[in-house]
Amino acid sequence: MSHTMDASSFPEMIRRKRDGGQLSAEEIHAFIEGVKSHTIQESQIGAMLMAIRLKNMVAEETMVLTKEMMMSGEVFHWPKEWAGLVVDKHSTGGVGDKVSLPLAPALAACGCKVPMISGHGLAHTGGTLDKLESIPDFNIHQSVEQVKQILQDVGCCIVGQTDTLVPADRVLYALRDITATVDSVPLITASIMSKKAAEGLNALVLDVKFGKAALYKDLDSARSLAQSLVTVGNSLGIKTGAVLSRMDAPIGRCVGNAVEVYEALECLKGRGPDDLKTLVTSLGGQVLQMSGRSATLKEGKEAISEVLKNGKALQKFQAMLEAQGVTAAISHSLCSEKAEYFKYLKRAQYQTELKATDDGTVLGIDGMPIAMVLHKLGAGRSKAGEPINHSVGAELLVDPGQQIKRGQPWIRIHHDCATLSSQQHADLQGALVTGSGDEYQDSARVAEFILPN
Amino acid sequence: MSHTMDASSFPEMIRRKRDGGQLSAEEIHAFIEGVKSHTIQESQIGAMLMAIRLKNMVAEETMVLTKEMMMSGEVFHWPKEWAGLVVDKHSTGGVGDKVSLPLAPALAACGCKVPMISGHGLAHTGGTLDKLESIPDFNIHQSVEQVKQILQDVGCCIVGQTDTLVPADRVLYALRDITATVDSVPLITASIMSKKAAEGLNALVLDVKFGKAALYKDLDSARSLAQSLVTVGNSLGIKTGAVLSRMDAPIGRCVGNAVEVYEALECLKGRGPDDLKTLVTSLGGQVLQMSGRSATLKEGKEAISEVLKNGKALQKFQAMLEAQGVTAAISHSLCSEKAEYFKYLKRAQYQTELKATDDGTVLGIDGMPIAMVLHKLGAGRSKAGEPINHSVGAELLVDPGQQIKRGQPWIRIHHDCATLSSQQHADLQGALVTGSGDEYQDSARVAEFILPN
Repeated sequence: MSHTMDASSFPEMIRRKRDGGQLSAEEIHAFIEGVKSHTIQESQIGAMLMAIRLKNMVAEETMVLTKEMMMSGEVFHWPKEWAGLVVDKHSTGGVGDKVSLPLAPALAACGCKVPMISGHGLAHTGGTLDKLESIPDFNIHQSVEQVKQILQDVGCCIVGQTDTLVPADRVLYALRDITATVDSVPLITASIMSKKAAEGLNALVLDVKFGKAALYKDLDSARSLAQSLVTVGNSLGIKTGAVLSRMDAPIGRCVGNAVEVYEALECLKGRGPDDLKTLVTSLGGQVLQMSGRSATLKEGKEAISEVLKNGKALQKFQAMLEAQGVTAAISHSLCSEKAEYFKYLKRAQYQTELKATDDGTVLGIDGMPIAMVLHKLGAGRSKAGEPINHSVGAELLVDPGQQIKRGQPWIRIHHDCATLSSQQHADLQGALVTGSGDEYQDSARVAEFILPN
Repeated sequence: MSHTMDASSFPEMIRRKRDGGQLSAEEIHAFIEGVKSHTIQESQIGAMLMAIRLKNMVAEETMVLTKEMMMSGEVFHWPKEWAGLVVDKHSTGGVGDKVSLPLAPALAACGCKVPMISGHGLAHTGGTLDKLESIPDFNIHQSVEQVKQILQDVGCCIVGQTDTLVPADRVLYALRDITATVDSVPLITASIMSKKAAEGLNALVLDVKFGKAALYKDLDSARSLAQSLVTVGNSLGIKTGAVLSRMDAPIGRCVGNAVEVYEALECLKGRGPDDLKTLVTSLGGQVLQMSGRSATLKEGKEAISEVLKNGKALQKFQAMLEAQGVTAAISHSLCSEKAEYFKYLKRAQYQTELKATDDGTVLGIDGMPIAMVLHKLGAGRSKAGEPINHSVGAELLVDPGQQIKRGQPWIRIHHDCATLSSQQHADLQGALVTGSGDEYQDSARVAEFILPN
């Protein structure tokens, strides 16, 4: 590939994509080089992103785009003896999604190396890093050398992205957000997979969400994203599979940051809500199968289930906390059998319970309005870098399918402002959908598995 | 209309256009305000331009966009006694298009006021201002007060755009050029008509080109642009019509700058090539009819023809030159019956004649390759603001339809570099299309008139 394109070629390549044509490898290289070196103007990036959003890319273009983005920065290399062991999970984002917290240590307990690079939350979805930062002294900033050492000693870490990793994605991600070009399969694929490929993974499972509180509302469009991710991942030499999971109701019973750490710890102690455990064992099981550590998906799930039950995953989590700066006193307290969680996790000043207004069966709980109210109460941020309030959150007191009586508390809101507004009350009450028992349909959290192709 | 939108609304409005929706008047106002005040980011402008290019706009949106752009800057107001007299012409750009030079003074000679704001050339099309700047001391920079005075005294002027006129267009025009969003009917319409509307016109004729050397290659697409321009112009209260004219061969026999001034002066002296005269009388005739100064198109054409023949248009041109800085000696010399044109117009150092390689009939002369070679020889610019060589040009020595002999010179190139490259020779020879007489089809320069609706 000769790299002789210059700034004067940019309009020509935007025109080709605008007209529905296929970009050459050389053009995609020049585009990403231009993004990285700021030689392509922002108006041109905006126009190109919109042309890609509207005219799409074929699998080959998406693959080249991903690779070029990956190559725009540092790529991790691991010790030879870890070959086949380095694995990760990525979720497209959901309400109450604390899966990474039990999953990374569970995989480490099964012998994997998990260099999990995660993000802070933006808009309605929470971020794994925000949840972990509810734990005093937890440090998400770890150098490549520190990550390697933690993987050597513990087997898993959950850290923030370094400046050196996929710099082109940081530019494009920020611009996609303001140019209405977020929901593009090739752009999402390249953004996610370039970062995962730069981690030097052997196997990767993707948790692709669909439903009312997800980017893609229906299973079909989520499946096409999942297929694109799986195709690109495998073509880059990473055993990549996906789980299509439903994102209407929050995952588990807690939404927020500190409250989700509590729930994740319960899961690591073999307790906690069933749907969370199902997601963790499904995603973990698929990783173990793909990386060859389990013969079948079923065996993989059982292995994850086992380390959640026998405390081995919990031990790894505790070791990870300490390796990432948490004092032994705090990590020991949080990970003890009968932890007083809110001795060290920050508890909000106020707890308000909302009560059901009718008798009936809980048909569903909409995650989206709950996330939006919590966001406004301080649990989320509107702009990257804004501080958040880790103690703000919600606990669901009922499960879909169960009977509820008028006047029965169904949600507990943790907040630091004195009162909830009447609008917030109304929005939250709107999230609880009740009806007659006949109307209730049990929808499994995990809808479909997509295996490496 | 309440103007309460802010920067956070931009992604939402880009999304609406991306999804093929119609932008509200408030959104279009906010977009143009954002462009003008630089509160909308360039990446967002690029994305919006691409969304408009791919999803189009309905007539109402185009109209609002045009009006908002016009209102982004100064709008001219003329003395009451000129009501109905203020007219102009706009061309979408062609090779050898010197029509404005005879047309503006011809309309002035018919009693009109012509505040013609023109541009410099970019890419393959020449600019009216570049042609006029071949004349020593011609000054395109005139204040609004000076324009008013020249219109009072002479009746016509041809000037450059001021900074105060349609500032939003300058931003959008530059960005369209680099984002492959030039050929969009609503964006072209708003760009052209906002500037013309800001001139405070009563009547306007548009010369919309189609053919191999035009932006639109076929009559149908040129017609849809013309229809859009005519609709928006009339809805803004300007009597607007259009002429659809063929742009395969250059207009007249001269292409360049100084050589086109020579040809325009010949036209003003009642001589010069027929196709140029046809264009000038057709466009001028339509203006006279629309402004009510002639009862019919035919009478309008005859009136223009008359002032070209009787020297009245030439007098106006001479007066305009002097009003815009040209010395009386030079203007008198250029406008005299037997002018030595290249006493004052700069002549290139070299003249090279190319010879026909076959006997036959001239079936056509492609303007595009000629324009491209002249551009490289210095007649045009690739970036706004670059200097050009006014003496570089070409004279065609044959007309389509005529017999030609092998070895007969058919084009004369005026150039300042010592030799033409063999590639330039080949490109130029490719522009001459010959064949048997049976194959020749006489295509009229003017294909269609579109009247105010």
